[in-house]
Amino acid sequence: MGDYQPVAQDALNAAQLELGGATNNAMLRRAFDPTAHDLEPTFRLTRFADLKGRGCKVPQEVLNKLVSSLQQDYPTQDQDEGDQFVHAAIPRIGIGLDCSVTPLRHRGLCLVQTTDFFYPIVDDPYIMGKIACANVLSDLYAMGVVDCDNMLMLLAVSTKMTEKERDVVIPLIMRGFKDSALEAGTSVTGGQSVVNPWCTIGGVASTICQPNEYIVPDNAVVGDVLVLTKPLGTQVAVNAYQWLDQPERWNRIKLVVSEEDVRKAYHRAMDSMARLNRTAARLMHKYNAHGATDVTGFGLLGHAQVLASHQKKEVSFVIHNLPVIAKMAAVAKACGNMFQLLQGHSAETSGGLLICLPREQAAAYCKDIERQEGYQAWIIGIVEKGNRTARIIDKPRVIEVPARD
Amino acid sequence: MGDYQPVAQDALNAAQLELGGATNNAMLRRAFDPTAHDLEPTFRLTRFADLKGRGCKVPQEVLNKLVSSLQQDYPTQDQDEGDQFVHAAIPRIGIGLDCSVTPLRHRGLCLVQTTDFFYPIVDDPYIMGKIACANVLSDLYAMGVVDCDNMLMLLAVSTKMTEKERDVVIPLIMRGFKDSALEAGTSVTGGQSVVNPWCTIGGVASTICQPNEYIVPDNAVVGDVLVLTKPLGTQVAVNAYQWLDQPERWNRIKLVVSEEDVRKAYHRAMDSMARLNRTAARLMHKYNAHGATDVTGFGLLGHAQVLASHQKKEVSFVIHNLPVIAKMAAVAKACGNMFQLLQGHSAETSGGLLICLPREQAAAYCKDIERQEGYQAWIIGIVEKGNRTARIIDKPRVIEVPARD
Repeated sequence: MGDYQPVAQDALNAAQLELGGATNNAMLRRAFDPTAHDLEPTFRLTRFADLKGRGCKVPQEVLNKLVSSLQQDYPTQDQDEGDQFVHAAIPRIGIGLDCSVTPLRHRGLCLVQTTDFFYPIVDDPYIMGKIACANVLSDLYAMGVVDCDNMLMLLAVSTKMTEKERDVVIPLIMRGFKDSALEAGTSVTGGQSVVNPWCTIGGVASTICQPNEYIVPDNAVVGDVLVLTKPLGTQVAVNAYQWLDQPERWNRIKLVVSEEDVRKAYHRAMDSMARLNRTAARLMHKYNAHGATDVTGFGLLGHAQVLASHQKKEVSFVIHNLPVIAKMAAVAKACGNMFQLLQGHSAETSGGLLICLPREQAAAYCKDIERQEGYQAWIIGIVEKGNRTARIIDKPRVIEVPARD
Repeated sequence: MGDYQPVAQDALNAAQLELGGATNNAMLRRAFDPTAHDLEPTFRLTRFADLKGRGCKVPQEVLNKLVSSLQQDYPTQDQDEGDQFVHAAIPRIGIGLDCSVTPLRHRGLCLVQTTDFFYPIVDDPYIMGKIACANVLSDLYAMGVVDCDNMLMLLAVSTKMTEKERDVVIPLIMRGFKDSALEAGTSVTGGQSVVNPWCTIGGVASTICQPNEYIVPDNAVVGDVLVLTKPLGTQVAVNAYQWLDQPERWNRIKLVVSEEDVRKAYHRAMDSMARLNRTAARLMHKYNAHGATDVTGFGLLGHAQVLASHQKKEVSFVIHNLPVIAKMAAVAKACGNMFQLLQGHSAETSGGLLICLPREQAAAYCKDIERQEGYQAWIIGIVEKGNRTARIIDKPRVIEVPARD
């Protein structure tokens, strides 16, 4: 096995080059250059899967149907918080939203756990690894869990990759995943990998904690406001970026956006997707959040609706503002119905937390997160009396979020 | 969502039919009949992936190379049992062998965790679900962990499945997975599912326990014997069964085996793969096992070598006996080098535990497991002084394990 080491070492040296000798939690200094790894200049990680974002998910309503077979015959148990949430979690199997919470034999402790995996969405393997890790952890953070005890990595190497491509790309993905885990204060202790037509990246995140360390997302009350901690439009940005190589696609949007705008949006999207929601989770406790979810494959409205459906009180969510990465709303419009960004259905990867906060705390929450991280958060809607649904108003206000803060 | 329920209900009714109203842990009474679900008689679950068994794994030496990037910069820590094993576990990332063990903040507790996923290996979706679950749990059992606290399900629906096929097959797979989890005394509380060219089934198993509840597999001593708790040849059996539909393939083996033999072997293989290694794990404690692993994608010798390489003492494993499902050794020989069954490289799915036991305890261990489960276990080799390797002797004795006990 030793005689294989050098190959992985090469890849790492190149990675170090790009990292500029950066420490674990530093962002890349230089973009991934296939030729620096003796790969074809045309190498694109995103070409090793045909679907991305929501496209790779089993439609929400289909899932609910499929898993209904699992729900129905779970015995009803004493409704202590743990069990109660186990039931709530079952219907969400596969939706990859939030976590399961399992009460343990050991007095007072719970296992909070989540898993998620998907296909390459950016062409930089190292960043892809960081995004995949941030995306898995995001489900824990959505439950207000700040510390992850352990992670496993799930990986599928594409059958279409050459050995050379595999030996360059896979160690970089693993390194990115691991660096993100270290940044989150946890580590990757195992996993599974197979070969598969499509390259697949994901993981499992687990925390053993006391019930007061997580926030069951079902306590929204009339008068709460909704806060979002990352801008929308990541899916639009990564697609627009890929269209730079595809004239017929590019022509559809070049009237509303410049190549420079797209590159900026793409880098902002990568930056945003690789960013951990950990501070957002920590502040949920400080500002008494009533519940949260993370915005991923089913888009802002899809996840808002699931969150609304789980509320104890008869409330509904109304969303007025849509913070979107600069120019991506225009791009989405130019693509007609394709993304449904303004309808709230555009898939996000490793999106922000959507949090129900007491009205008087929301502004302080947003200020605090900006002070700590240098990233803005936005009040995007309100909680009113209703039948546990969510909607976006007719003409929502689009907040253009600059590609560079 | 309620209006989708009936469809899943249909699938379940058909399943119940096949289960003959069986309870959760009963085996199927009747084989899966596609037409009973209004599917084409030619429907074969195994056609929704091109690779099976070892074929779907990243080769062992490649993995060791790829993950070397993760090993190298883990800080050395106090060598208490937990940390020590975390390091031992890292190189195995992706090999899907054994578990990771993570010491927790909560005094004295550890998180023992494993994940595994692969492609359909049998055509009966319900049994496939049971096999997938047993295969995931097997990694915990290999560590002597008897109780699993929680499971997550990983599922990929094939892009090539019709909606009808999906709606029939997926609930049956989930049901089988869940029934197996209940049989193991645990439950499935969440998961993730995507669409993918190949149908994929797997899961995550987690246990929070005290260090005395698991057995670190590194204590083999000279004079120990090796016990195997399930017969080899599952991969040969499932392939031979598929060749019944493929004359050109069938012609290669029909001289050494009858159609009846193959059907019997296939059912014995399904039975064996769906069987939990839980009793085998429980008895490891009773008979002071010095370590174990479960035999899966890399075959008996592949896993024996990994186990040998992790021993504290300078020992080697020598294997003399190969218990094989009846007639499958002959089939393997007739296929030339394809399976390498007698060389110990034939992939197994949800195979038995390979256990190092003190010589004087081994016979009692085998008797006990047969008494409790009605399945045989075999002493297949010895532990001698050596350089932490494993080998099979030149002309190993093949033990023909009857297709029906």
